[in-house]
Amino acid sequence: MRSNFKGPHRLSRNRPEWQRISGGVAAARGFLASGVAAEIKKQSLDLAVVFSSRPSVACGVFTTNLVKAAPVLLSKKHLSRARGRIRAVLLNSGCANACTGKRGMADAVRSARCLASHLGIDPYQVVVASTGVIGIALPIQKLLKGIPAAVAALSPDGWEAAARAIMTTDTREKTCAVEGRIGDRPVRIGGMAKGAGMIHPQMATMLSVITTDAAIPRPVLESVFRRVVERTFNCLTVDGDTSTNDMVLLIANGASDAKVEGAGSAYFEQGLEIVCEEMAKMVARDGEGATKFVEVLVDGASSVDQGRRVAKAIAHSPLVKTALYGQELNWGRIVAAAGCSGVRFNPDRVVLRLCGIPVFRNGMAVSSTQRRAEEALAAHDLQIHLDLAQGRASARIWTCDLSHGYIDINGSYIT
Amino acid sequence: MRSNFKGPHRLSRNRPEWQRISGGVAAARGFLASGVAAEIKKQSLDLAVVFSSRPSVACGVFTTNLVKAAPVLLSKKHLSRARGRIRAVLLNSGCANACTGKRGMADAVRSARCLASHLGIDPYQVVVASTGVIGIALPIQKLLKGIPAAVAALSPDGWEAAARAIMTTDTREKTCAVEGRIGDRPVRIGGMAKGAGMIHPQMATMLSVITTDAAIPRPVLESVFRRVVERTFNCLTVDGDTSTNDMVLLIANGASDAKVEGAGSAYFEQGLEIVCEEMAKMVARDGEGATKFVEVLVDGASSVDQGRRVAKAIAHSPLVKTALYGQELNWGRIVAAAGCSGVRFNPDRVVLRLCGIPVFRNGMAVSSTQRRAEEALAAHDLQIHLDLAQGRASARIWTCDLSHGYIDINGSYIT
Repeated sequence: MRSNFKGPHRLSRNRPEWQRISGGVAAARGFLASGVAAEIKKQSLDLAVVFSSRPSVACGVFTTNLVKAAPVLLSKKHLSRARGRIRAVLLNSGCANACTGKRGMADAVRSARCLASHLGIDPYQVVVASTGVIGIALPIQKLLKGIPAAVAALSPDGWEAAARAIMTTDTREKTCAVEGRIGDRPVRIGGMAKGAGMIHPQMATMLSVITTDAAIPRPVLESVFRRVVERTFNCLTVDGDTSTNDMVLLIANGASDAKVEGAGSAYFEQGLEIVCEEMAKMVARDGEGATKFVEVLVDGASSVDQGRRVAKAIAHSPLVKTALYGQELNWGRIVAAAGCSGVRFNPDRVVLRLCGIPVFRNGMAVSSTQRRAEEALAAHDLQIHLDLAQGRASARIWTCDLSHGYIDINGSYIT
Repeated sequence: MRSNFKGPHRLSRNRPEWQRISGGVAAARGFLASGVAAEIKKQSLDLAVVFSSRPSVACGVFTTNLVKAAPVLLSKKHLSRARGRIRAVLLNSGCANACTGKRGMADAVRSARCLASHLGIDPYQVVVASTGVIGIALPIQKLLKGIPAAVAALSPDGWEAAARAIMTTDTREKTCAVEGRIGDRPVRIGGMAKGAGMIHPQMATMLSVITTDAAIPRPVLESVFRRVVERTFNCLTVDGDTSTNDMVLLIANGASDAKVEGAGSAYFEQGLEIVCEEMAKMVARDGEGATKFVEVLVDGASSVDQGRRVAKAIAHSPLVKTALYGQELNWGRIVAAAGCSGVRFNPDRVVLRLCGIPVFRNGMAVSSTQRRAEEALAAHDLQIHLDLAQGRASARIWTCDLSHGYIDINGSYIT
């Protein structure tokens, strides 16, 4: 019931610990990446390619927004038609190619075809992803012109440029990679992510590509992936808005010859969770205008779903988020946010802790700790921990505060 | 089906139109009001009393937040025990008396008893309401000391002071009153309201007291009141947070001798809706840090509930609200917010209008209008109108933008 908190970091019996390595989305053997400037944006990297030099299998999780961007619709189709045998990903920032009608779909198709022909693969083996402003047509000529340069730049060292090329309001690139061992074979998992606003659980929280050289059958890959996404990217919220474009993609090419099967799949799942959790937290930390990283833990819920509803209500409350920004001990707002989550609990039995310090218990303030709790709010990393005293289930959500920076960024996003 | 838009302002057949008058919550005959400074806040009015000099009936709508402040719990009990025969309301700002445990309830009981003894009525005939910071004990001695002064100040002219005494982050007092005629009798309805943050539909949106000298049986009063609240106060959102304290109260004392019965109740409902709609819009206009008043209309929904879910998703989106603040034509965010409302519709059939100008149709931008729409965003009053092309139901929500002012106010609310 408390699986949310066990985390992946405990060592499996007789299994070597996963080690951090560099290399991001190109850390796993047989993967190349690049990031180039195609002039979609002014004077910055805006076009990325990830390529597996070997046959591979892939699975993806896509936005649940009813309004889906053309690249999302096309990529879902390609994954299905190619039966997961995806070889390359084309990603651009600067334009979301969403709400762009038939032309948007035609542009997405053309870009996939162009990359496929340069790589000598089938267009169905290309996944496309776009991020940026909604409602504006893709500058398709610039994008097509950028593709040969992006293909020429593909290398094991291109991972940082690729991670930078997918940034929008992100202030830093987000990558993570780990190495473990299955049998006598080293196995690697690495990824890159972007996302800072329009971030909300239930997919899609962001754009992310994860690669691995593990040899893993697609059904196992899919089930492991879904569980990990649920425990990591879907625990993330910045502003409660779910984008039209987001996706998380996992590609496995088997280049390590390390076969993931039986008990090995739990071990692989640990490694994948380290990478996904790290990137999800990076997104919360880099939330638009964020000055605080906030973990909301809800314990004692009667189900994980109920716990998550309460955690989300707290994480979405503008009043809670602005108080954290102002470093004000206005914990009443946290209790009030939980109270309007729609989940039933007894306010007199609830215990609220801020950064480990109890501030509300027996239906009223714990007066002796208020000063100490106030001081704790000066930290960058904050934890809100609410025990509902109802059941044994737990949930967690990662978020950030709501600051002047968020208003600045989103009040003048286009201009 | 489109009742939301018909509004109350059409003239009933053979009925005189409702006229605006001054007098706020004391406009109706037999009502007195006062607002005094009891030093709960520093140097401003903070304690208000509304009193009916005649027997009266009342009904109330209270917050749906699971965490209810002591005054809310006590007032619900009093309304029930007194069978609606409420005579007085005691309101304070500066402290919400919420999350204050047993002491909070004891303080609420004492304040009601004190007012009752000064007015010579039963404590059960007193409704109490508090607004301000959560989690801090009521300064009960100051409040009790202020009650005699508030009773002494009761007068038909005390309506403005009363409206000011319940303000928190409000920048102006909110009052409205109208006069109509039933038979040969003039009848009046008036009220006051407060609210600027923590404002969200489904009760409780604010603190409001409405009075009338109509002679109206309690069951009729209740059903009319619930319908009007649903169409007015519950169409309001500032930040999606529902307070622990809010309530709307309606007291009728029959002083006009105008009997509301049969067809007259529809006429009375019109008058009440004018007062409630006006005050609800005042609250949205005065939303914390608001620089824009925004009406979100959703047409063509398959049910009122579905339409309202879409309207709320738009009105709650921080990305939509910051773009409106920045006067940016980022309409893609509006479509995206609708898309993650959970309501099914066909994005290719949807039409989005900003201030009457179509900007999105057939799944893409209406390119010819973008400049004009951008200019329209400079206005103070904005309308977002989304036609879902699904059914015949409509809904509307009133809200405001999200600005630096909101962050300033809520990042330093206590200090």
